[in-house]
Amino acid sequence: MNDKRKILEVFENKYPDRDYTITHVAPEFTSLCPKTGQPDFATITVEYIPDLLCVELKSLKLYFHSYRNDGIFYESLTNQILDDLVAVVKPRYMRITAEFNVRGGISSVVEAEYYNDDYYDEEDINFS
Amino acid sequence: MNDKRKILEVFENKYPDRDYTITHVAPEFTSLCPKTGQPDFATITVEYIPDLLCVELKSLKLYFHSYRNDGIFYESLTNQILDDLVAVVKPRYMRITAEFNVRGGISSVVEAEYYNDDYYDEEDINFS
Amino acid sequence: MNDKRKILEVFENKYPDRDYTITHVAPEFTSLCPKTGQPDFATITVEYIPDLLCVELKSLKLYFHSYRNDGIFYESLTNQILDDLVAVVKPRYMRITAEFNVRGGISSVVEAEYYNDDYYDEEDINFS
Amino acid sequence: MNDKRKILEVFENKYPDRDYTITHVAPEFTSLCPKTGQPDFATITVEYIPDLLCVELKSLKLYFHSYRNDGIFYESLTNQILDDLVAVVKPRYMRITAEFNVRGGISSVVEAEYYNDDYYDEEDINFS
Amino acid sequence: MNDKRKILEVFENKYPDRDYTITHVAPEFTSLCPKTGQPDFATITVEYIPDLLCVELKSLKLYFHSYRNDGIFYESLTNQILDDLVAVVKPRYMRITAEFNVRGGISSVVEAEYYNDDYYDEEDINFS
Amino acid sequence: MNDKRKILEVFENKYPDRDYTITHVAPEFTSLCPKTGQPDFATITVEYIPDLLCVELKSLKLYFHSYRNDGIFYESLTNQILDDLVAVVKPRYMRITAEFNVRGGISSVVEAEYYNDDYYDEEDINFS
Amino acid sequence: MNDKRKILEVFENKYPDRDYTITHVAPEFTSLCPKTGQPDFATITVEYIPDLLCVELKSLKLYFHSYRNDGIFYESLTNQILDDLVAVVKPRYMRITAEFNVRGGISSVVEAEYYNDDYYDEEDINFS
Amino acid sequence: MNDKRKILEVFENKYPDRDYTITHVAPEFTSLCPKTGQPDFATITVEYIPDLLCVELKSLKLYFHSYRNDGIFYESLTNQILDDLVAVVKPRYMRITAEFNVRGGISSVVEAEYYNDDYYDEEDINFS
Amino acid sequence: MNDKRKILEVFENKYPDRDYTITHVAPEFTSLCPKTGQPDFATITVEYIPDLLCVELKSLKLYFHSYRNDGIFYESLTNQILDDLVAVVKPRYMRITAEFNVRGGISSVVEAEYYNDDYYDEEDINFS
Amino acid sequence: MNDKRKILEVFENKYPDRDYTITHVAPEFTSLCPKTGQPDFATITVEYIPDLLCVELKSLKLYFHSYRNDGIFYESLTNQILDDLVAVVKPRYMRITAEFNVRGGISSVVEAEYYNDDYYDEEDINFS
Repeated sequence: MNDKRKILEVFENKYPDRDYTITHVAPEFTSLCPKTGQPDFATITVEYIPDLLCVELKSLKLYFHSYRNDGIFYESLTNQILDDLVAVVKPRYMRITAEFNVRGGISSVVEAEYYNDDYYDEEDINFS
Repeated sequence: MNDKRKILEVFENKYPDRDYTITHVAPEFTSLCPKTGQPDFATITVEYIPDLLCVELKSLKLYFHSYRNDGIFYESLTNQILDDLVAVVKPRYMRITAEFNVRGGISSVVEAEYYNDDYYDEEDINFS
Repeated sequence: MNDKRKILEVFENKYPDRDYTITHVAPEFTSLCPKTGQPDFATITVEYIPDLLCVELKSLKLYFHSYRNDGIFYESLTNQILDDLVAVVKPRYMRITAEFNVRGGISSVVEAEYYNDDYYDEEDINFS
Repeated sequence: MNDKRKILEVFENKYPDRDYTITHVAPEFTSLCPKTGQPDFATITVEYIPDLLCVELKSLKLYFHSYRNDGIFYESLTNQILDDLVAVVKPRYMRITAEFNVRGGISSVVEAEYYNDDYYDEEDINFS
Repeated sequence: MNDKRKILEVFENKYPDRDYTITHVAPEFTSLCPKTGQPDFATITVEYIPDLLCVELKSLKLYFHSYRNDGIFYESLTNQILDDLVAVVKPRYMRITAEFNVRGGISSVVEAEYYNDDYYDEEDINFS
Repeated sequence: MNDKRKILEVFENKYPDRDYTITHVAPEFTSLCPKTGQPDFATITVEYIPDLLCVELKSLKLYFHSYRNDGIFYESLTNQILDDLVAVVKPRYMRITAEFNVRGGISSVVEAEYYNDDYYDEEDINFS
Repeated sequence: MNDKRKILEVFENKYPDRDYTITHVAPEFTSLCPKTGQPDFATITVEYIPDLLCVELKSLKLYFHSYRNDGIFYESLTNQILDDLVAVVKPRYMRITAEFNVRGGISSVVEAEYYNDDYYDEEDINFS
Repeated sequence: MNDKRKILEVFENKYPDRDYTITHVAPEFTSLCPKTGQPDFATITVEYIPDLLCVELKSLKLYFHSYRNDGIFYESLTNQILDDLVAVVKPRYMRITAEFNVRGGISSVVEAEYYNDDYYDEEDINFS
Repeated sequence: MNDKRKILEVFENKYPDRDYTITHVAPEFTSLCPKTGQPDFATITVEYIPDLLCVELKSLKLYFHSYRNDGIFYESLTNQILDDLVAVVKPRYMRITAEFNVRGGISSVVEAEYYNDDYYDEEDINFS
Repeated sequence: MNDKRKILEVFENKYPDRDYTITHVAPEFTSLCPKTGQPDFATITVEYIPDLLCVELKSLKLYFHSYRNDGIFYESLTNQILDDLVAVVKPRYMRITAEFNVRGGISSVVEAEYYNDDYYDEEDINFS
């Protein structure tokens, strides 16, 4: 397990018989541009349908803080957060949306999803 | 029947032949964090298609007030409200959405649904 | 025909060969609470696909005004408006949405639909 | 060809192999009420998928101006604009949405669509 | 390869096994009207699902700047940006949306899409 | 004392040594047009600096409700509310602002103030 | 008296002992550009402190409609409305604000004031 | 010293030579109505110019939480918060603004100020 | 006279006896950064009290367009526009506000004023 | 000179004969809480009237970045930024406003000003 994943803590989902959704929105995310070393700012949204575990909110905050002095590209950041959270929380479905502040007059959004094949495929989910 | 459910009152649905929807939005919900004892604040939305009963609005308000000094996690709160309202109102369909204020720079939303199998399954509902 | 329905006037739809939609939004609706006698305030939205008739706008305004001193529950009000307008306008499809102001810290919305079976069923309509 | 249609000019669509959409929003539309002679104000939205022709923007503006002193009902106006534009531009699909300002405390929207049967039917289009 | 396409640079997509989406929004786009020589202003949105390549953000900015003194129609501009980006980035799916500022009291939007047939057809995508 | 003034109740100001301000905003005010009998809708704002008395909130609500079926002009309504509240509450300063909904495409605001000469004149107050 | 002024009607101010303010906002004003004949659109705001007379709202609406087919510059329009209303209503103070829609990418506002020297000079008024 | 004041903690102002302002906005305030026992919700804003002390933010939060199950009127609440904070923080100037949620269709704001006579009087302060 | 000033045209102020204000807002201004050659984007607002002349709107638009390919700093741009317009229009008062889009995560505003000493000094103007 | 001040660069003010204002708004400021080590987020606004020097925008950005891993209280941060910028830029007037994100349900703003006595005192400035 990588170091960042160790920060994430989980607790038992008390309602595993019901498919329900949990959304966490973190507008205070910041990391560094790997090319220039300048700060990047983003809002990270985590949406998921839990299976047996839920992510603990304070540990999620600390996980996000751990990127503060890391240099990482937008596309890699989004996919890495998804991989880390799926590995630890093992959800039925998860989506990560990263909305980045304006750079060079352009704002960017990257969005990636995970489907647990035992529960869902792409047609079943209509989150919006 | 638990004590909270006893607070909830219902009245007869005068139009049971028609499937129609009722939405109540309560932006003044507050409970306590079970770990720290600090207040949590949320907006609770109840959406449902009634069968033979409707929930009485004033009793719903008092039901929400009953959580004021309870310590309860976000995920349990949302599912418990759904269980209580389904048990008393016996709707054809119901959805509870709980939107929580920012804590540690992160805001959270939990959403859970109930389908009465005699009337609906997941494909039939497209509430948005 | 009840007295309220007599207020409603119609005119001929000049384009019956085309299915098209008409929406009227009335944010100045007021009636009385049947329990307390206190005023209720709502925005009423009428959406429909006309068949041979359209509702005349000024008569619709007067129809809404006729509720000014009536005591009536949210759920009954919405369904009664739908029944009255369907009886007089005979549309292919109609939806009534009633959005009520905050009472006891809670705002409410009731929404009901009518399908003329010769033209539509529930799967055909995807309004909003 | 009626006089209003003669105002509309078209130019060749350079990308007929690709289905793409064009939207024009005109918030400065005004005509007269045919009953009272009082001015009506509306926002007209034209959405279409071109076939071999596109409508020229300046001629569209002048076409809208030609209604300035015409008395015409909301429902007829919307359908007539659709008929005129379809006759001249011959699109694969077109939708006209007319949003009218408040009159008697009520605002209104009329929306009508055209499908060229060689290309589309109602199920294929999901614009908004 | 045309001169504008040479401005665009790409980098390797590190997560080609996962279908995910990237959105870039550029509200500072300006070109010239080919008829009058007057400046046009637009917001250009690029949405795509990468295959093996991603577009580099700074080169995208410079690509947009290259239109600053070009005279070009709305419809051609949107389709040309799509053709250029598809040729260089070779995505699984791409959509270009160009929203133009008010001219003559009318604002306009043009939107065009590309589907790589090995991956998608029109039914599979439901972006917004 | 007129009948409307009798509806208004007061309670003792516990902090008469300090000049402080109280604002009540009532967006659900409705009366009738004295010419046409049609309903008027307004938002009434009461701002005041209490002397020895404060207006009781529930009685203020009932006072506003008492206008529901009265025919009265905008200008008279605003000045009459000011006169009634000044007579009963005897404040050091009071301002009434009445914002009326659109009629004939025009919205209107009437605003009137009272100064208790023992305490204030026009130069002393800068509420906004 | 010019023809436009004859349209304006007044009624007696019942509260001449109190200086109070009346505001009318007309967002549906339209006239023609005197150079090009193209329509101009504006929101006209009338703010005044009445002396012995108030302007009647329906006549004000008709006065604004009388400009519908007049060609007139922004600056002249604003000053002419002020002159006409001052001549007929004889207020203690009046301000006309005309906010014009975008033309050539530029929006414009013209604002002119009148002070009745018996009551006010520039220092006394702080409307905003 | 009353019990609530004991909750408040202070720290030394490091810049006493400069008059500067500190604003804290607490939108999660809740207390009880002393008549009905129902919850009230408000946003409390504290604005002040420190002298030798600043209020510690976490203790301010706990001070506000201490009202959670107290029954207290709007006007008393606002003045009591001002008295408590002035007694502990001893500022050069302080203003408390309490904005209460809608009750009976009416929202309310109460605002009270304190001036330390050694530093300021009413004319010197122009905060907002 | 410099070349840019020659673009500006004026017309006679028909109401020189009255001090009134004219505001033009141009949100489509663009020039180049003198260091990097990258485009800058700004909204330029011109507010003035005319003396004997008014600036003609179309010439103002062309004057702003003339900066399209000029490299110029924010502070110089704002002051130069003020100097040019004062030289040509000779107003009683003028203010230029330039609001620049985000660069490096920072947005900027520069504002400069001119007072014709025969008419005004700093205390007389309170534009806001 | 402290290390942070060395980051700040200046350039010559070309218009020292005119008092004009420059505003920079930096919404991406982040530092650390000195007690908990958790990140704080703020928007910093710098408003000033230059004398002989202006602050260079890119150096200002880097100056703000230098706080990224510093632990510092809100009140000290605001005053220290003011002291540093005044020492380097030597303006006629400067104001720093720091708006901090929600912590414990409370958001905070600290604002401090500097007056160069040769040019201004408190009465002369009315920025807002």
